[in-house]
Amino acid sequence: METSSLHIAVVGATGAVGQQMLHTLEKRNFPIGTLTLLSSARSAGTKVEFKGTEYIVQEATPESFNGVDIALFSAGGSVSKQLAPEAVKRGAVVVDNTSAYRMDPEVPLVVPEVNEDDIKRHKGIIANPNCSTIQMVVALEPIRKKYGLSKVLVSTYQAVSGAGAVAINELEEQTKAIVSGESFEPKVLPVKGDKKHYQIAFNAVPQIDKFEENGFTFEEMKMINETKKIMHMPSLKVTATCVRLPVVTGHSESVYIEIEDDAVSVKEIQNLLKDAPGVVLEDIPEEQVYPMPANAVGKPDVFVGRIRKDLDDNNGFHMWVVSDNLLKGAAWNSVQIAESLIKLGLVKK
Amino acid sequence: METSSLHIAVVGATGAVGQQMLHTLEKRNFPIGTLTLLSSARSAGTKVEFKGTEYIVQEATPESFNGVDIALFSAGGSVSKQLAPEAVKRGAVVVDNTSAYRMDPEVPLVVPEVNEDDIKRHKGIIANPNCSTIQMVVALEPIRKKYGLSKVLVSTYQAVSGAGAVAINELEEQTKAIVSGESFEPKVLPVKGDKKHYQIAFNAVPQIDKFEENGFTFEEMKMINETKKIMHMPSLKVTATCVRLPVVTGHSESVYIEIEDDAVSVKEIQNLLKDAPGVVLEDIPEEQVYPMPANAVGKPDVFVGRIRKDLDDNNGFHMWVVSDNLLKGAAWNSVQIAESLIKLGLVKK
Repeated sequence: METSSLHIAVVGATGAVGQQMLHTLEKRNFPIGTLTLLSSARSAGTKVEFKGTEYIVQEATPESFNGVDIALFSAGGSVSKQLAPEAVKRGAVVVDNTSAYRMDPEVPLVVPEVNEDDIKRHKGIIANPNCSTIQMVVALEPIRKKYGLSKVLVSTYQAVSGAGAVAINELEEQTKAIVSGESFEPKVLPVKGDKKHYQIAFNAVPQIDKFEENGFTFEEMKMINETKKIMHMPSLKVTATCVRLPVVTGHSESVYIEIEDDAVSVKEIQNLLKDAPGVVLEDIPEEQVYPMPANAVGKPDVFVGRIRKDLDDNNGFHMWVVSDNLLKGAAWNSVQIAESLIKLGLVKK
Repeated sequence: METSSLHIAVVGATGAVGQQMLHTLEKRNFPIGTLTLLSSARSAGTKVEFKGTEYIVQEATPESFNGVDIALFSAGGSVSKQLAPEAVKRGAVVVDNTSAYRMDPEVPLVVPEVNEDDIKRHKGIIANPNCSTIQMVVALEPIRKKYGLSKVLVSTYQAVSGAGAVAINELEEQTKAIVSGESFEPKVLPVKGDKKHYQIAFNAVPQIDKFEENGFTFEEMKMINETKKIMHMPSLKVTATCVRLPVVTGHSESVYIEIEDDAVSVKEIQNLLKDAPGVVLEDIPEEQVYPMPANAVGKPDVFVGRIRKDLDDNNGFHMWVVSDNLLKGAAWNSVQIAESLIKLGLVKK
């Protein structure tokens, strides 16, 4: 296989994640022969630069995928539902960064540090998990492997960029209005398609995505179901509370876990995570060293700190997990999957 | 007892909490005969209005408490340590809103909705708990009483006003600098007296107060120890992760509890909290009704919503608890204690 001849398509090339995908492909010097940038009809015609060359974004149609080897989708679930099968039909492998296929039993849901081997059983589509799930499982997998994992309780502190460029704009506009004493009308968050919209600037909103009938939000159920699927632990106890914050980029998570081994020290967990793939340990309380979203922006890693043993349960641990939701949470994980496809020899030429 | 003749002193009258204490005393039409406003030497001379009359704030000295019936302290732990005993010596009952005496076994730590009777055993000083503890125990006490309580895990989303007026200024200045593309130097948060200072605007900082040797912060240990003391449950399992957010006022908490009864429904918990003292239930997911700090500001209540049964453990429940940290978390709880002193006939005249 001559990898430099790969034809890559990015669907949703003008969006917040699409832009990060292009930066990441550039940074990784991904072996691209031909690059096709696609979007909705609305954004078609936009000019985008990649490695010094200007590309004109085209409207995505089934025919756009003729000759494409790997198609990175990040243009919303409905676009993926409509066009991913068309891309597969034309011989492309799709890495889909929407929730369209994540829970499809036929589709591998992959975080390379955790379950890279699942890529091997793909049937054309590989799903990229939800941003808040990815960073958590990267931190938990080394612990599960060595000490067993029985329970996960997570409360999230999520950035607005997870809801796209319109949400970033809304936070900026509201912030400016508030600091200059002007009025404003919330229009996007917590969920673009839901009935009511609330202030996000200087606020904390305990709703991400719509509510399900069980009182959990879709975002919370994504974290729960995707964690079980990625870790191959259908009966792992997982519960999530997802909260949107006035942070532009960088999700944080307060994670409580129970492990099977009850004689593990904080030092042992720290040593394990220090050398874990994709993880950067930032955990020196006496020097005030711990992860924060403002420091994680632009970096591909998952930062872990504030590791403490529960004061009551010997097998309980608390930790604070932070990552750039647009990179490891989306663009970087998608490109990593594409790199794994090459490494595993799974891209047909 | 002629309650209208009470002599009230407010120590720290110019601070964020002191100002809210005055507003609350005014709003409650508290039976004040004489009002003495005290502060550090630095703020002495400041003019403050109360019920249309202008008061000049005086420097607090031992002699300031001559003739005082109730002294509300909120000027920092060192001031309380120095002057609260002097006030008591002169016959005043002290309601102390600092951490100076909270864990002193001789000092009742009181949230009137939870343990008003503890006031009866006071020896001159009654401590007002930490803001983040107060709102949590108000929500948990009705549940403990009816269904038993065995475990509490809380992740907080705390406003900067908990760190005083300087922290509010810092958030405002940083926010303005960032939206106008200017540089800034963090000087106050996460902890004024700690070595390093970090950006709070558009960030989430997992440190409130300094670190203890066990890796928990003082704020986290306050929540843990104070909850046990207020609820009279020395062996209750409690663990906290405390996080500072770019929110001016209003603390939020993602609370997971385990109760003793494993056949309780969400509806039963909702019905219980709907009628609980100090609690306002805001829990209609299908109408996007849940508590948020931006809505809680200026209100004395503890708002509870997002009540869900754990998906794996029948005795586990999740909830989202929000309150104005300067009111129920500080000023209003202190004034409530003062009202309880009158109601219980414990103010000597």
